Amino acid sequence: MLVEQLLKKYFMLWLEEDIPFLDVSNWFIPDSAGKAVIFTKENIVVAGTPVIVKWYEFLGIKATPLVEDGQQVNKGQHLIEVKGSVQKILQGERIALNIFSRMCAIATLTRSLVKRSHSRIPAIRIAATRKTTPGLRIFEKYAVLVGGGDTHRFSLSDCVMIKDNHVVIFGSISKAIEEARKHTSFTTKIEVEADTIDQAIEAAKAKADIILLDNFNPEDIKRVIPKLRELHPTAIIELSGGISPSNLDDYLIPGVDVISMGFLTHSVKNVDLSLEIMTS
Amino acid sequence: MLVEQLLKKYFMLWLEEDIPFLDVSNWFIPDSAGKAVIFTKENIVVAGTPVIVKWYEFLGIKATPLVEDGQQVNKGQHLIEVKGSVQKILQGERIALNIFSRMCAIATLTRSLVKRSHSRIPAIRIAATRKTTPGLRIFEKYAVLVGGGDTHRFSLSDCVMIKDNHVVIFGSISKAIEEARKHTSFTTKIEVEADTIDQAIEAAKAKADIILLDNFNPEDIKRVIPKLRELHPTAIIELSGGISPSNLDDYLIPGVDVISMGFLTHSVKNVDLSLEIMTS
Amino acid sequence: MLVEQLLKKYFMLWLEEDIPFLDVSNWFIPDSAGKAVIFTKENIVVAGTPVIVKWYEFLGIKATPLVEDGQQVNKGQHLIEVKGSVQKILQGERIALNIFSRMCAIATLTRSLVKRSHSRIPAIRIAATRKTTPGLRIFEKYAVLVGGGDTHRFSLSDCVMIKDNHVVIFGSISKAIEEARKHTSFTTKIEVEADTIDQAIEAAKAKADIILLDNFNPEDIKRVIPKLRELHPTAIIELSGGISPSNLDDYLIPGVDVISMGFLTHSVKNVDLSLEIMTS
Amino acid sequence: MLVEQLLKKYFMLWLEEDIPFLDVSNWFIPDSAGKAVIFTKENIVVAGTPVIVKWYEFLGIKATPLVEDGQQVNKGQHLIEVKGSVQKILQGERIALNIFSRMCAIATLTRSLVKRSHSRIPAIRIAATRKTTPGLRIFEKYAVLVGGGDTHRFSLSDCVMIKDNHVVIFGSISKAIEEARKHTSFTTKIEVEADTIDQAIEAAKAKADIILLDNFNPEDIKRVIPKLRELHPTAIIELSGGISPSNLDDYLIPGVDVISMGFLTHSVKNVDLSLEIMTS
Amino acid sequence: MLVEQLLKKYFMLWLEEDIPFLDVSNWFIPDSAGKAVIFTKENIVVAGTPVIVKWYEFLGIKATPLVEDGQQVNKGQHLIEVKGSVQKILQGERIALNIFSRMCAIATLTRSLVKRSHSRIPAIRIAATRKTTPGLRIFEKYAVLVGGGDTHRFSLSDCVMIKDNHVVIFGSISKAIEEARKHTSFTTKIEVEADTIDQAIEAAKAKADIILLDNFNPEDIKRVIPKLRELHPTAIIELSGGISPSNLDDYLIPGVDVISMGFLTHSVKNVDLSLEIMTS
Amino acid sequence: MLVEQLLKKYFMLWLEEDIPFLDVSNWFIPDSAGKAVIFTKENIVVAGTPVIVKWYEFLGIKATPLVEDGQQVNKGQHLIEVKGSVQKILQGERIALNIFSRMCAIATLTRSLVKRSHSRIPAIRIAATRKTTPGLRIFEKYAVLVGGGDTHRFSLSDCVMIKDNHVVIFGSISKAIEEARKHTSFTTKIEVEADTIDQAIEAAKAKADIILLDNFNPEDIKRVIPKLRELHPTAIIELSGGISPSNLDDYLIPGVDVISMGFLTHSVKNVDLSLEIMTS
Repeated sequence: MLVEQLLKKYFMLWLEEDIPFLDVSNWFIPDSAGKAVIFTKENIVVAGTPVIVKWYEFLGIKATPLVEDGQQVNKGQHLIEVKGSVQKILQGERIALNIFSRMCAIATLTRSLVKRSHSRIPAIRIAATRKTTPGLRIFEKYAVLVGGGDTHRFSLSDCVMIKDNHVVIFGSISKAIEEARKHTSFTTKIEVEADTIDQAIEAAKAKADIILLDNFNPEDIKRVIPKLRELHPTAIIELSGGISPSNLDDYLIPGVDVISMGFLTHSVKNVDLSLEIMTS
Repeated sequence: MLVEQLLKKYFMLWLEEDIPFLDVSNWFIPDSAGKAVIFTKENIVVAGTPVIVKWYEFLGIKATPLVEDGQQVNKGQHLIEVKGSVQKILQGERIALNIFSRMCAIATLTRSLVKRSHSRIPAIRIAATRKTTPGLRIFEKYAVLVGGGDTHRFSLSDCVMIKDNHVVIFGSISKAIEEARKHTSFTTKIEVEADTIDQAIEAAKAKADIILLDNFNPEDIKRVIPKLRELHPTAIIELSGGISPSNLDDYLIPGVDVISMGFLTHSVKNVDLSLEIMTS
Repeated sequence: MLVEQLLKKYFMLWLEEDIPFLDVSNWFIPDSAGKAVIFTKENIVVAGTPVIVKWYEFLGIKATPLVEDGQQVNKGQHLIEVKGSVQKILQGERIALNIFSRMCAIATLTRSLVKRSHSRIPAIRIAATRKTTPGLRIFEKYAVLVGGGDTHRFSLSDCVMIKDNHVVIFGSISKAIEEARKHTSFTTKIEVEADTIDQAIEAAKAKADIILLDNFNPEDIKRVIPKLRELHPTAIIELSGGISPSNLDDYLIPGVDVISMGFLTHSVKNVDLSLEIMTS
Repeated sequence: MLVEQLLKKYFMLWLEEDIPFLDVSNWFIPDSAGKAVIFTKENIVVAGTPVIVKWYEFLGIKATPLVEDGQQVNKGQHLIEVKGSVQKILQGERIALNIFSRMCAIATLTRSLVKRSHSRIPAIRIAATRKTTPGLRIFEKYAVLVGGGDTHRFSLSDCVMIKDNHVVIFGSISKAIEEARKHTSFTTKIEVEADTIDQAIEAAKAKADIILLDNFNPEDIKRVIPKLRELHPTAIIELSGGISPSNLDDYLIPGVDVISMGFLTHSVKNVDLSLEIMTS
Repeated sequence: MLVEQLLKKYFMLWLEEDIPFLDVSNWFIPDSAGKAVIFTKENIVVAGTPVIVKWYEFLGIKATPLVEDGQQVNKGQHLIEVKGSVQKILQGERIALNIFSRMCAIATLTRSLVKRSHSRIPAIRIAATRKTTPGLRIFEKYAVLVGGGDTHRFSLSDCVMIKDNHVVIFGSISKAIEEARKHTSFTTKIEVEADTIDQAIEAAKAKADIILLDNFNPEDIKRVIPKLRELHPTAIIELSGGISPSNLDDYLIPGVDVISMGFLTHSVKNVDLSLEIMTS
Repeated sequence: MLVEQLLKKYFMLWLEEDIPFLDVSNWFIPDSAGKAVIFTKENIVVAGTPVIVKWYEFLGIKATPLVEDGQQVNKGQHLIEVKGSVQKILQGERIALNIFSRMCAIATLTRSLVKRSHSRIPAIRIAATRKTTPGLRIFEKYAVLVGGGDTHRFSLSDCVMIKDNHVVIFGSISKAIEEARKHTSFTTKIEVEADTIDQAIEAAKAKADIILLDNFNPEDIKRVIPKLRELHPTAIIELSGGISPSNLDDYLIPGVDVISMGFLTHSVKNVDLSLEIMTS
């Protein structure tokens, strides 16, 4: 799913960061062939096995996934088996765990929030934002996907977002939407970030593809949704702004299509994975 | 402090990630000159102002820091003023906030742990590990430094760490240290990761520069330190393994020189920063 | 509009290609300050002035545009004035003309086809495809935009296209659309490439955002459009497949929203631009 | 013939351009092994098979050429067979066709012009120029070669070209040649671009290795050649300037050694190639 | 020992330098499979076999080392056997020899100086400096290691060096050391560059890990060492400054721990290696 | 003369090599503005001032050359003045000196050999080879040029060299030349590497542009030259193979056009340059 060749660019950066010259601790040890496993010390949703397989392939080591991305696994589960030069296995260990722990953490958090949300509103989507770690967007968006979430747009190049600035310059939301539509490819959706009920209504009238209720309180959301649905039945209604696991329940309001949360990527704690050399 | 030219490599990666083609939302808006500020919505320790200044310089925009890295500032404080093309200010916004929020978060967490530790043991060091986000090591280690922490080694190329593997292969810790010393530059320190009290004692006898008590419980730590000091008075004694803000106090044991915590970089939540266009 | 920093990556590639070592013809000539203009030997629509300005800035030379992208200008018109070291002006000349001639050619062709189409169907869009020159997509899509065309999707990452392959695997177009919708971000449109009238109708029933009539003959197009409109009034109807300037008129059929043409980028001839050193 | 390792740099650029993140259309389809062929819908001269083989190898797919570069083949001919993951075959399709169509087009056009020219003047060379597509010089020059043409110089680093500028600064063509010879490696030829009959004659007297008659009309060419041959029997005589397939015949003048045409690379239309998944 | 993936970055640079376009001498020769050996025309210490093996692997060619790095071999010895496309063997030849000759030269020189020094002072170390060839540090430091030398620090990021500048700014060596210790990781040693006997003594009193006697004459060295040892028994004492093979003996003074010599990398002459195609 | 933009690629590599993370020795020193000079401790021919100026510009520091490339200067001469942040001046120091010392060394050696040769044979050329340091070809060839030498071909892409391999495959030197001429651009010279007198004579008969007498002894050279001149008066006659400063005089034989020496780049010792901070 991840385009493998693109990963190499990242791998090179990460490797240069972790071993700019020699691995001074290990170069003088006689190398030998060996085996290791990466396992989890927590219950997690797995995400990133193809990254780890490619990472070790990049280092000339064979890694075999024992589980699949998206699987829910328990503490103790072996995730990936690694075979080859012990020295290289160890050289790749830290980076493998650093990225894998982060990806699993995002997938695990996403899955738990998706489940919680679906138990209340079956069709709702939990989406990531552009608040990703610089240099890791593809890895983090992918982990969200694996966790059952929605990637939202990947970049500023793939979905129009109309904000205050547009409204100020073009004079009104409807005029801004009109201009956006004229200047944007027919392949691209147009989303309006509404800060007030009036803006949301204007966006619905102007047939925005997506209406983002930004920093709305639950009461206003409940009040405005029926109006939006009436004015524009196929609009997608998205909530955003400071929503976290602790207040998510307040926003699980019928009629909401999407809740997007920067929290998924900017406030997640890594899960605890470990690599162990197997003595045979 | 950060070598500016090296930052460009990261900036290019981050920019390609966020705007691979055109900024479809904004290209059709007439541009104008304007001003913005980045401010904080929490009390924080600032880290990363030179990165943001260079980032905006990279985009052709003048950014001026209003505070210095390392300063403790309150919620609401303006951190950086940005002047120039509004379109470019907005294009740079998300990435600026993504990296700056993370760097401030690490510095803030580090500072709080350093302060707490110093109130008990004035000379103790709180150190980061190699458990950094792939592609961000220099930014995260720097933020630890700004927060008053210790960077620990930057990479596998700059401090020898003797682990199980060495002991198995060379037969004993003292033999492993001897081999390491022979094969390592005189400019490099030799650290031993001890898993047991016996290993720690052997490391002290063999005059390891640094003795890491890995995953020791507080009782064992208390018991072993006097012995280590007796055997090797100038050894640096480091603790590591699952130490987090919630259990740190248990490890603030007199005689400990360094506590290193992956938590500082792998489990920190971003602080909440925001950019606001100023209407004049 | 083009993100300037991203251009440098291309500039470096182009420069290494044209002067891998020294400029053997010119290094031994004493350099002097001078002035040059880039002018056109044909009537054209201008596209690429910011690229040329940045290109010369990259070489340390000041270039000033005398016209704006999108302007229709006549043979002989001066487009850009260049001032600085004559040696560097000449070193940059060939690459400047190579890219500028291509971009203007695309904009000029696009504009002429857009005009011709609009005279028959005012709201129709003429769109580019992914049949761009490898390594020049951003430049060519931008030139299409400047010419009044539609960029279509930039890459495989920004709009779902359902093709035969999906239909075979998922069993039907409607099932394929359902799967796509489930697995794709809510920010992304879903387009169906229909090879037959039946497929087009099925796509309309399943509410595809965009229905592409691929390689349809004009009669079939005329016959199917009313049915599609009836089944799915807001669908966007696109034509593609072997449409060129010589047969375009046959496809200017009322009800068509978009005509996409690989021709715009894969079969355009460069316009004739020239750089002349001005003797003062 | 093409140095394979160098191709990877281009492949990475092209891939990032076409799939910056995920392939959103295809990631959710179960992948399978399959087979495809690239075939031609026109009569062409094949050029680029090693590029396509390496491109698919880069993507982890086995491609086998069914024809050789330089072969003249008819419409319908299968050119390359591709075997492996259907998803990856499709991910590589567009880029493969974009570059291959262009390379074949250049070889086909070159071959036809070379043939036409040789029927009149057996030893004449048809050469490309530096008017190549930015970022594709190596591919386009190679295609010219495959088509039977002459690459001309690859870059500003490999053949001295004396132009107006030199003459103005050094005072005369003979002085410019003298200076060039003094400052240029003995491995490098010296060419003079003559704008007038007098300049051509002066270049011949000064024993330029190559004399380029730039924008000369056929009459002047016919008149000047005998004089040049008399003055400098081993000089290579080249024509350039606005020569295209439509006026080439006027320049097929006995005594001319080389005709160089920017047209070969800046005004060629891609040939029509296609990739088809084979159902077994 | 060298991290293989990092080598590719260098290989690409070297290849682009040696064959930016086609290999014009060889592309028209029919290729064939063949065998070659790299052998030495001098007595040398071998260094760089893994680089050559990886280099040829990078070019798609199998190379097999016949000796090991660090081995002392005589004139005529075959070092590496290379098998595969003769064209590619030849394309890789020049670069292979250029880097291999330099690495062997450094190892050979280092070994001879280490041997000479050890015959007088068994435990002394001969170290390289940062005076390496730009772009080759990792290769040259590695060759020093293979020759039995000490790499010294790899970069400005891995050992603190206190110089004049620090002393001027902080007021004294002891204050500078104190500041350095406070601001530097506990994993990093602190070295003081002493220009005078007084500075050396102050450094010893302040317990610098390493004391560098820079440009001291042998008499002063002899005089100061006992004092340093008395003040700071575990200090490492290093000499540097203009030491070359011709005056090295003057500096082989008991009590000296390390002699560092820029000469090892900035003034070494390549050894004479050759590649020969084997006719079978 | 050097294309400045291309230098940045090298500068980034060199900088990453010398400061991969922070400059640990200096980051904690308060920075100040200052001045430094680079001066020479030997009599040299200067080469590389534009490289140093660009290098410091890359670091944000103003450097001003006090001499010009190609100038012969005496010990003690100030070469370049550097002004700006003392910290950055020092960060750039080592790399600046490493490259500048090497370039001046090559120019100085080349100049001395050129002078010695010209005193015997005024028109003879002393040329470099492809035996350059990997990653530094452009810098070393440029230094040869500055020293008054000839760059020889820059790469395998710019001059045909016919060797044994061709002769074996094509059956004879004349056949090989014929094939080369047919397959090589008219802009490219054809050189034959002759190992025997017979080969040299055959090359002359076949009108090779350049005849390289490879590893010929002086007697054979003297004997063969008149024959070559008779057969092919305009041929360029080059000597190569093991020629060094110590045996050069034996090869200064009338009739020889070029002597090429790998020694110029593979066996040169760096000159001794130094940077000194000026106290004002």
